[in-house]
Amino acid sequence: MNNVIKLANRPAGEPQLSDFEFVTEDKPSPNDGEILLESKYISVDPYLRGRMRDVESYIDPFQLNEPMESTIVAEVVESKNSNFEKGDFVFGMLKWKEFQVSSGTGLNKVDPEKAPLSAYLGILGLTGLTAYISLEKIADLKEGETLLVSGASGAVGSTVGQIGKIRGCHVVGIAGSDEKLALMKDKFGFDEGINYKTTDDMTKAIAKACPNGVNVYYDNVGGDILDAALNNVNKNGRVINCGAISLYNEKEVPQGPRHEGILVKKTVLMQGFLVRDHAKDFGNAIQQLAQWLQEGKITHEETIVEGFKNTPQAFLDIFKGKNKGKMVVKA
Amino acid sequence: MNNVIKLANRPAGEPQLSDFEFVTEDKPSPNDGEILLESKYISVDPYLRGRMRDVESYIDPFQLNEPMESTIVAEVVESKNSNFEKGDFVFGMLKWKEFQVSSGTGLNKVDPEKAPLSAYLGILGLTGLTAYISLEKIADLKEGETLLVSGASGAVGSTVGQIGKIRGCHVVGIAGSDEKLALMKDKFGFDEGINYKTTDDMTKAIAKACPNGVNVYYDNVGGDILDAALNNVNKNGRVINCGAISLYNEKEVPQGPRHEGILVKKTVLMQGFLVRDHAKDFGNAIQQLAQWLQEGKITHEETIVEGFKNTPQAFLDIFKGKNKGKMVVKA
Repeated sequence: MNNVIKLANRPAGEPQLSDFEFVTEDKPSPNDGEILLESKYISVDPYLRGRMRDVESYIDPFQLNEPMESTIVAEVVESKNSNFEKGDFVFGMLKWKEFQVSSGTGLNKVDPEKAPLSAYLGILGLTGLTAYISLEKIADLKEGETLLVSGASGAVGSTVGQIGKIRGCHVVGIAGSDEKLALMKDKFGFDEGINYKTTDDMTKAIAKACPNGVNVYYDNVGGDILDAALNNVNKNGRVINCGAISLYNEKEVPQGPRHEGILVKKTVLMQGFLVRDHAKDFGNAIQQLAQWLQEGKITHEETIVEGFKNTPQAFLDIFKGKNKGKMVVKA
Repeated sequence: MNNVIKLANRPAGEPQLSDFEFVTEDKPSPNDGEILLESKYISVDPYLRGRMRDVESYIDPFQLNEPMESTIVAEVVESKNSNFEKGDFVFGMLKWKEFQVSSGTGLNKVDPEKAPLSAYLGILGLTGLTAYISLEKIADLKEGETLLVSGASGAVGSTVGQIGKIRGCHVVGIAGSDEKLALMKDKFGFDEGINYKTTDDMTKAIAKACPNGVNVYYDNVGGDILDAALNNVNKNGRVINCGAISLYNEKEVPQGPRHEGILVKKTVLMQGFLVRDHAKDFGNAIQQLAQWLQEGKITHEETIVEGFKNTPQAFLDIFKGKNKGKMVVKA
């Protein structure tokens, strides 16, 4: 028997448990070239809310009465594909099923010796990959440079900051509570923190925390904080546009000061980034991140919920702020 | 005897002839390691107006009672530097003097066989270099892509468009008169032109002229036209921020729609560019541009004024629109 979780309704507003359907199916069998996977750890993430809507975006919407999906770490329990052996662990975009067959396409093997399996959904998963690959491709961090990060206590931001420290940068984080600032400094090793909720003049606060100016700004939020960062940007500065959460709930595109004057005058680069475009780099990136994790050079926060059937509830709990760091379900 | 032109006053508003001082000096003699140069062609450009102000910018302001300077093509008339021979022609940032000595630093030799000497101030000078180097470094133009250019009939824009055609792109130019559109299409080979002064909805006009979307937008203007270009940008689009003339006369930074949402969603790159940062690439770039010029693959417009002493007047005439294409003085 096989437990499966499907999308029952497209939620209006905050999703409810009734938006999901729990069904049982026969356990599938792999054909030649296929593998049978057993889900071990399931990632639940805010971006899945977007896929529950029926709108065009950078990733297809979920279909009604079809299984939900997210990034999952699974064990190969039967293999008819020469690239995989029984007992291998893999990571990839998979369905919310206890058991499923796969051709193996799009899956990366993961090593349970190198890191706990749940880490492959967080610091070794899409959030860690986002941080690592975007910095490698765009930031060109140099020792002694200043790296400014918004959303700095989050799963992406905290990894960005830690990589900045490995690269020898002065790292400054922006977050929304003093508790988050303490986490950034004490656990993740940031040099300075700015609480944007208690700061009137972000341009001045950034100038104070970044006395040599900003070489790289890692932007998870957009809006006024981006403006303040650009007011402090150095010649040849780089901005990684990883997110613009301050804009996502706006019905019309908000207005703000034009940036093109600064871009020309300071020869600044701004580059939008989506990790899904870089799947071919995942393997090498995971290796590097796993090594740093083993060496204790990077760390992360996670909340683990037990039980496959609790996956929808764990997803709902994210929006209630019940997680600390990355939310993961142990199947 | 040696004629020299100095800055006499910092102009308020449009510069006047009285802002310049004409003086005579003894003809200088080169020391060991130096060369004596005779100015042959002098470039006059709108950006020199900025250097007449005493404000910090990407290039130092002119000093009062010191010679003006701009890019000049000069002949080596005496050499005590083993890197140069009498009869060589060089190009570089030089003073408004009929004769001057130089260590040779920052000068590039130019070949009068390959192109008329005046061309080294236009299509083979900073404007051509701007177009070529920025496209090579940033645009990554691919055959069949769409290149949109603003300020398209100008010295930079017209070269950008012609290089786009050499690279096999669909090239669309934006300019401010039907006469300029005709020049773009007939002389410079653009595929389509948009007159922004007679177009109500630039987003729609660009969509019509760029049916496959915009892969690369070469921005000389900023402002509303940048917004309209971004409304049509494709996934992985590139924007070269070469100028933002629509902002230069504003006292405060104007507001506009925020771009960071599009940057993330379409993974767009925006990159500010100043040609002065790329002096080490000038030699190779001039060679390529000179070859295209010889082969008839690119062309340009220029207005040549005779007489060294007419350099200030030629500069003033730019602001009255008396030039067609690049304005150059033949000394």
